[in-house]
Amino acid sequence: MTIMMDKDALNAFLARDFPQVAGQYLVEAVSGSGLTARLRVADDHLRPGGTVSGPSMFALADLAIYCAILARVGPVGLAVTTNASIDFMRKPAAGVDLLAECRVLKLGRVLAVAEALIFSEGQGDPVARCSMTYSIPPKSSEIRGV
Amino acid sequence: MTIMMDKDALNAFLARDFPQVAGQYLVEAVSGSGLTARLRVADDHLRPGGTVSGPSMFALADLAIYCAILARVGPVGLAVTTNASIDFMRKPAAGVDLLAECRVLKLGRVLAVAEALIFSEGQGDPVARCSMTYSIPPKSSEIRGV
Amino acid sequence: MTIMMDKDALNAFLARDFPQVAGQYLVEAVSGSGLTARLRVADDHLRPGGTVSGPSMFALADLAIYCAILARVGPVGLAVTTNASIDFMRKPAAGVDLLAECRVLKLGRVLAVAEALIFSEGQGDPVARCSMTYSIPPKSSEIRGV
Amino acid sequence: MTIMMDKDALNAFLARDFPQVAGQYLVEAVSGSGLTARLRVADDHLRPGGTVSGPSMFALADLAIYCAILARVGPVGLAVTTNASIDFMRKPAAGVDLLAECRVLKLGRVLAVAEALIFSEGQGDPVARCSMTYSIPPKSSEIRGV
Repeated sequence: MTIMMDKDALNAFLARDFPQVAGQYLVEAVSGSGLTARLRVADDHLRPGGTVSGPSMFALADLAIYCAILARVGPVGLAVTTNASIDFMRKPAAGVDLLAECRVLKLGRVLAVAEALIFSEGQGDPVARCSMTYSIPPKSSEIRGV
Repeated sequence: MTIMMDKDALNAFLARDFPQVAGQYLVEAVSGSGLTARLRVADDHLRPGGTVSGPSMFALADLAIYCAILARVGPVGLAVTTNASIDFMRKPAAGVDLLAECRVLKLGRVLAVAEALIFSEGQGDPVARCSMTYSIPPKSSEIRGV
Repeated sequence: MTIMMDKDALNAFLARDFPQVAGQYLVEAVSGSGLTARLRVADDHLRPGGTVSGPSMFALADLAIYCAILARVGPVGLAVTTNASIDFMRKPAAGVDLLAECRVLKLGRVLAVAEALIFSEGQGDPVARCSMTYSIPPKSSEIRGV
Repeated sequence: MTIMMDKDALNAFLARDFPQVAGQYLVEAVSGSGLTARLRVADDHLRPGGTVSGPSMFALADLAIYCAILARVGPVGLAVTTNASIDFMRKPAAGVDLLAECRVLKLGRVLAVAEALIFSEGQGDPVARCSMTYSIPPKSSEIRGV
């Protein structure tokens, strides 16, 4: 697939359109088949016991997959997640960032499907697995219900 | 099922063990079959366009289901989400809270399954649907890998 | 929602378009909010130990939800499942049929979302829970990729 | 991970314990990280228009993942699927078999998680993606509720 937005373009897009999470989530790399994103783990992301919370991992997967789709279709701000399935498999390692490695499996006219594995940085076994479906708005300015 | 923790006990538990989200998420009601929880929507939960973010809805469902299980098994801090599936179906209404109505479908020795519908307060159609599996730790002090 | 196809119309549709499963799956009731379908459990549906197989339960949920959508949009043969999430919670009772009770949560222009609970006939606790997304083809004759 | 059952052992296990599907589903290859299984597509698996039915693809993923787990834990007949999430992404090609390539992501004491991509033989883009959780029974003879 053709890359419409590279790493820098995606990070600039996030900084402008998602100021609430700016600095927390970062696109690390964009490739022909996928994308890697980082969660800079901070106190806000932790649950009792020092582990990263499920919603923080969900947010990382969501952002990584969103960016992987934007990388291929351009800055379509209205693409929305319609379905997500996530398996939490291991406790993240303490004190290290999380990395999501995602891959776009389908990029259709209306729906895109992608999956992500989340790793504690430097660890070989994934802490979570996620797949998501995004609804892609029509190119025309007409907005309709999905 | 027997209720081991009521609304006040659950809110006290959240305030003590989840200080990061204290005040944002609130247990509204506990019944024999389920539980209702509220997300007090604030700027932190919003995405461009003023809609509540997917991760915020995921966090609401996760917290509601967690509390619904705790209401039945008592304050077992180590119960962990192992799987979640969520469908985002409608754009939340602007400027109102979200309510999650959840129901426990199974409470086994090792796994619990529950589902939640999320509504914009005062609206009849759900904005999201979620089902989750929780792993329940053994009652003995022995901690083992799930 | 308006009912476009009743129980008899749906069973006639299944008999004509799904001859492979005719007689195995049966629409029992259609209501304003949902639909009930039956799997006449036979040897083909069983796994070792006499339990109904997962794929047979998946097929029941798929058919029930498909019919619940058709009941509302009319005989659109091209509606396709795009996502399914299923939790198997209890072992079905031996020697009895399975009933799926499903409910349509969203019926949009492009996507429909519904959920089903599956019960062993006469039992109070569900054996499985399922949610599915269907892609609904455009009303015009134009066929496009989803 | 250590392989406890190879391709021939798995096919012999299927032939003995799953006579209903014997000959339809076949283990093609077992590797250190995963397993490939084949669905010999026949008329029974087809839906109107000649496409392979969703339940048949679900059954293929279920069997492939089951065998991938057995390959690692040995012939534990009581392992059961507790959760599955599946995305149907493309229409399978007509007249060719389907291949499921699966990978075990976690093999814990109680739960195993694996994922599969399903391809029409000879095609590069997957027709479906599936992830499943299996509950693994305790090694002792004691049977308990999951």
